[in-house]
Amino acid sequence: MKTLVIISHPDLDESSSQQFLLAAIPKNENITVHHLEINYPDGNIDVFREQELLLAHDRIIFQFPFYWYSSPALLKHWQDVVLTEGFAYGQQGSMLAGKEFCLVLAIGVKESEYQAGGRELYSISELTKPYQALAFKTEMIYLKPLLIFQFAYLTHEQKIQLYMDYQQALTREKDDSLQAREKWLLSQLENMDKQNLADAEHATLSNAIAQIKSNRSTIEELRLILEQMR
Amino acid sequence: MKTLVIISHPDLDESSSQQFLLAAIPKNENITVHHLEINYPDGNIDVFREQELLLAHDRIIFQFPFYWYSSPALLKHWQDVVLTEGFAYGQQGSMLAGKEFCLVLAIGVKESEYQAGGRELYSISELTKPYQALAFKTEMIYLKPLLIFQFAYLTHEQKIQLYMDYQQALTREKDDSLQAREKWLLSQLENMDKQNLADAEHATLSNAIAQIKSNRSTIEELRLILEQMR
Repeated sequence: MKTLVIISHPDLDESSSQQFLLAAIPKNENITVHHLEINYPDGNIDVFREQELLLAHDRIIFQFPFYWYSSPALLKHWQDVVLTEGFAYGQQGSMLAGKEFCLVLAIGVKESEYQAGGRELYSISELTKPYQALAFKTEMIYLKPLLIFQFAYLTHEQKIQLYMDYQQALTREKDDSLQAREKWLLSQLENMDKQNLADAEHATLSNAIAQIKSNRSTIEELRLILEQMR
Repeated sequence: MKTLVIISHPDLDESSSQQFLLAAIPKNENITVHHLEINYPDGNIDVFREQELLLAHDRIIFQFPFYWYSSPALLKHWQDVVLTEGFAYGQQGSMLAGKEFCLVLAIGVKESEYQAGGRELYSISELTKPYQALAFKTEMIYLKPLLIFQFAYLTHEQKIQLYMDYQQALTREKDDSLQAREKWLLSQLENMDKQNLADAEHATLSNAIAQIKSNRSTIEELRLILEQMR
């Protein structure tokens, strides 16, 4: 699976959340990071190049700070000029059909304000309807978004979780089963660069992998017994 | 009441719907028309000037073609740079509080597609939640939007109705009572430029005004009788 991360942010260098996410992106030929403001400082978008990029990937990520309940202006401009009739929708062709679409949003206000009675009035699911409608019209599969509320206030543990969640948003095949998450975790552990690990750490890692595999065997055995009992 | 019409459209001259609306705007010192793309072709928005404009008006109109369920990019950029914390919201000040906010949207797809089962999936009320949340956060009063579906296919009669509806969106005080609509209509009739009218037309107009006033008297009398009967 190839993933295209389209980032729109007017000042990427100054954003601690965006820098954190950038550092979390696995160096991987299957992931393309594409920052619009760097590529098009004058706003003149190369429509053909952008459409080629979309065609070459299976999962499209829109990653941006949630300003006034939407994206920065350049991503909106990109939508208007790149997602044309005959390419993205309409009778002549829906070239994005079947691809996956996922929002990664950095949100400055805490989650509990996004509801009736809160300062932001509506939920993120309500406020992102324009993106859901976009995915529907272009026949893309709308994935659960990755919502990052108030990055600056995250604890160390929450940041580690975010690191994992973000990598999964970029690379994990769409499947929420326990087994799929386990498989993804195993492949991450097994592909880790282990050169810099001390022997003890290396052993811990091997034990963790063995433990997960052993748990899986137990689960499979239990499932078999259950099926025989039916 | 002073009304600020903020128009965002990348090519106003080529838009028949926008030209129709421009022609319908009453020449009136209480209405300011402000086209963003003409004022800021390079996108460098004069924030102070824009905030002054907002402060000087009571009703703020956002008028634009509904591209990908939102505005053209320049209006989004305007929102992000003009509606700052301490000006539009936050503890330091909500300078827009109590003003009225109204969307005037030109929409290329027919109304019936904007629902579950339709090609656009969601209603306009659902898709405009970001603007409703904006009005809520800035403490502005969200008025019923003026939605123009498929302008090119409107009949002559529908265009006349749109002409009236648009003038009302710009100038009529917020009050949906029959009496308020009647009052607005009377003031429009009485303020018409009658120099170019033939005598017969002049008489028709005078009769119409007299008729409306007479109807109003009858209604008031009936109301009085009803109250006495209680």
